[in-house]
Amino acid sequence: MDTITIRMPDDFHVHFREGELLRRLAYLVAQQFGRAIAMPNTLNPPIRTVDDAIPYRDEILMHSGNGFQPLMTLKLYPDTTPEVVRGAHAAGVVAVKYYPEGVTTNAEDGVSVGRLSELYPAFEAMQDIGMLLLLHGEMPGVFCLDREAAFLEVLRRLCSDFPGLKIVLEHITTAGAVEAVYTLPATVAATITLHHLELTLDDVIGDKIMPHNFCKPVVKRPQDREALCYAVTSGNPKFFFGSDSAPHPICAKECAEGCAGVFTAPVAMPRLMEFFETLGCLTKLDPFVSQFGAEFYGLPLNQGTLTLVREPWIVPVEYAGVRPYLAGRTIIWRIAE
Amino acid sequence: MDTITIRMPDDFHVHFREGELLRRLAYLVAQQFGRAIAMPNTLNPPIRTVDDAIPYRDEILMHSGNGFQPLMTLKLYPDTTPEVVRGAHAAGVVAVKYYPEGVTTNAEDGVSVGRLSELYPAFEAMQDIGMLLLLHGEMPGVFCLDREAAFLEVLRRLCSDFPGLKIVLEHITTAGAVEAVYTLPATVAATITLHHLELTLDDVIGDKIMPHNFCKPVVKRPQDREALCYAVTSGNPKFFFGSDSAPHPICAKECAEGCAGVFTAPVAMPRLMEFFETLGCLTKLDPFVSQFGAEFYGLPLNQGTLTLVREPWIVPVEYAGVRPYLAGRTIIWRIAE
Repeated sequence: MDTITIRMPDDFHVHFREGELLRRLAYLVAQQFGRAIAMPNTLNPPIRTVDDAIPYRDEILMHSGNGFQPLMTLKLYPDTTPEVVRGAHAAGVVAVKYYPEGVTTNAEDGVSVGRLSELYPAFEAMQDIGMLLLLHGEMPGVFCLDREAAFLEVLRRLCSDFPGLKIVLEHITTAGAVEAVYTLPATVAATITLHHLELTLDDVIGDKIMPHNFCKPVVKRPQDREALCYAVTSGNPKFFFGSDSAPHPICAKECAEGCAGVFTAPVAMPRLMEFFETLGCLTKLDPFVSQFGAEFYGLPLNQGTLTLVREPWIVPVEYAGVRPYLAGRTIIWRIAE
Repeated sequence: MDTITIRMPDDFHVHFREGELLRRLAYLVAQQFGRAIAMPNTLNPPIRTVDDAIPYRDEILMHSGNGFQPLMTLKLYPDTTPEVVRGAHAAGVVAVKYYPEGVTTNAEDGVSVGRLSELYPAFEAMQDIGMLLLLHGEMPGVFCLDREAAFLEVLRRLCSDFPGLKIVLEHITTAGAVEAVYTLPATVAATITLHHLELTLDDVIGDKIMPHNFCKPVVKRPQDREALCYAVTSGNPKFFFGSDSAPHPICAKECAEGCAGVFTAPVAMPRLMEFFETLGCLTKLDPFVSQFGAEFYGLPLNQGTLTLVREPWIVPVEYAGVRPYLAGRTIIWRIAE
């Protein structure tokens, strides 16, 4: 088999950034995905209302090429009112993202977990109109390896308090999170990244310290990675792809205090193809990247297709000053021209 | 209290390196410690026999100033015979260090755990003549956070097979290792570093990724750190100080694949003083740094003294191209001139 053609996939978690990184790197997402959820936090200022979201959508569109559709989100703030939610929804914004205060990049000004109930009017509005709540599922102030587990209680409470609200636990990393998403109602789903399927802490601090494999939530134990692999190959529609591709300039990674984020956009679909093929589960790839996410979001499936060719290539060591995931490594599949 | 004078301490685990790093940094150890165990692995070639150890001792002496005494060690190799051991002992070498093959810097050519029994003649000779066996206690091929726990079985076997051999489990990092050393016979002791007393994984990968806090064995969970603090403040003579101070040029830390090692030499005694004072256990510092180690090694206690002055200073961000532990932070105690 020399080529494979699948339904055009979607990426339900992307950091497009802004300025030069956006201009020079957005095409990498657009050439592999029909749509992508644009994260609202890692630009300055973050996307707070529809008045931020619309120009940002236009900017992404300008640099991402024909036919690509960015899906916009707001970052949840203490002043995210039902009116803000409804106004954004009317303009096509599909979700609101919650970052517990202090937990990741640009989350210093977020809503603390303790005050989340003050946002219940916004969540009610979202539940009414069918807007999704996306969660960075880590509890601030907890030891790094336990943050996701500690946050599951918040997930359960939100799920119980808003039985009609669609919730996505983003970039899950632990067996415990897989188990929680399995057992919670059908309103709860999770995104899984490529790098969390492949890496453990051994790839970050096992031999040398590898800042380009560092992200939040940090990758965990081998048994956690295995639980994620099981989730994506089980065919359960609660688990779908979100790359969390997050470019940082090399100097912001290779330094005394390196930033969190793995830049997987250049290799996402080729490497996923290779990964699923190695597992002997190639038939599970299409629903994971092209169906389950769209269905959960209530979007039509993409009409187009994506073709990959079995033609080995070496991943460049740099794109616009950013070192990609698997830099210098050979990948067997590539995107067809 | 503006000054404190204690018995001159010893550091039972130091990487002096060689060449420029040795020439420019050895004085930092010598100004705080009467003696220091010189690790045999991180120079090229490593210290394999007495013929390597003697010139290395002379080189350290040349750059460390009056009155300082380096204590020499050999690195264990497949060809470390009883004759090698006896020859080294006769020349004053005090210990042999075992690095399981592949487990840390320059351990690619070591002895695998599976073939350790082939070295039993050497261990018997060491037991006979009173030479110590120092262990890098991590099991290769195991997930990074579990390597020390997996190695404890090897420690127990060696302890059982050589009841008269003095064994030091170096730079312990987990509650499990503390417990094992407590319960094993009096022939087994452990060194504890400054940075393992202070750091957890939150200081390496909790927010940013911090290569200058990365070492092997990697720092662990808060409860592991607490177990180490309890061990050093309990007054149990099985636990004594070994800094594992390990300078790397900044460019070897702040890069895509950063080296393991924390350079604590510039701050060791001042920070230990501050640390024990904060814990309200200042009386436990003297035996931890000046008595228990010497007694375990069978060395006389140092005759000299070390005086520290309560006089805040800011740790320089660089010594000879190496970034020290706590760079840029203020420490309340300093070594008296």
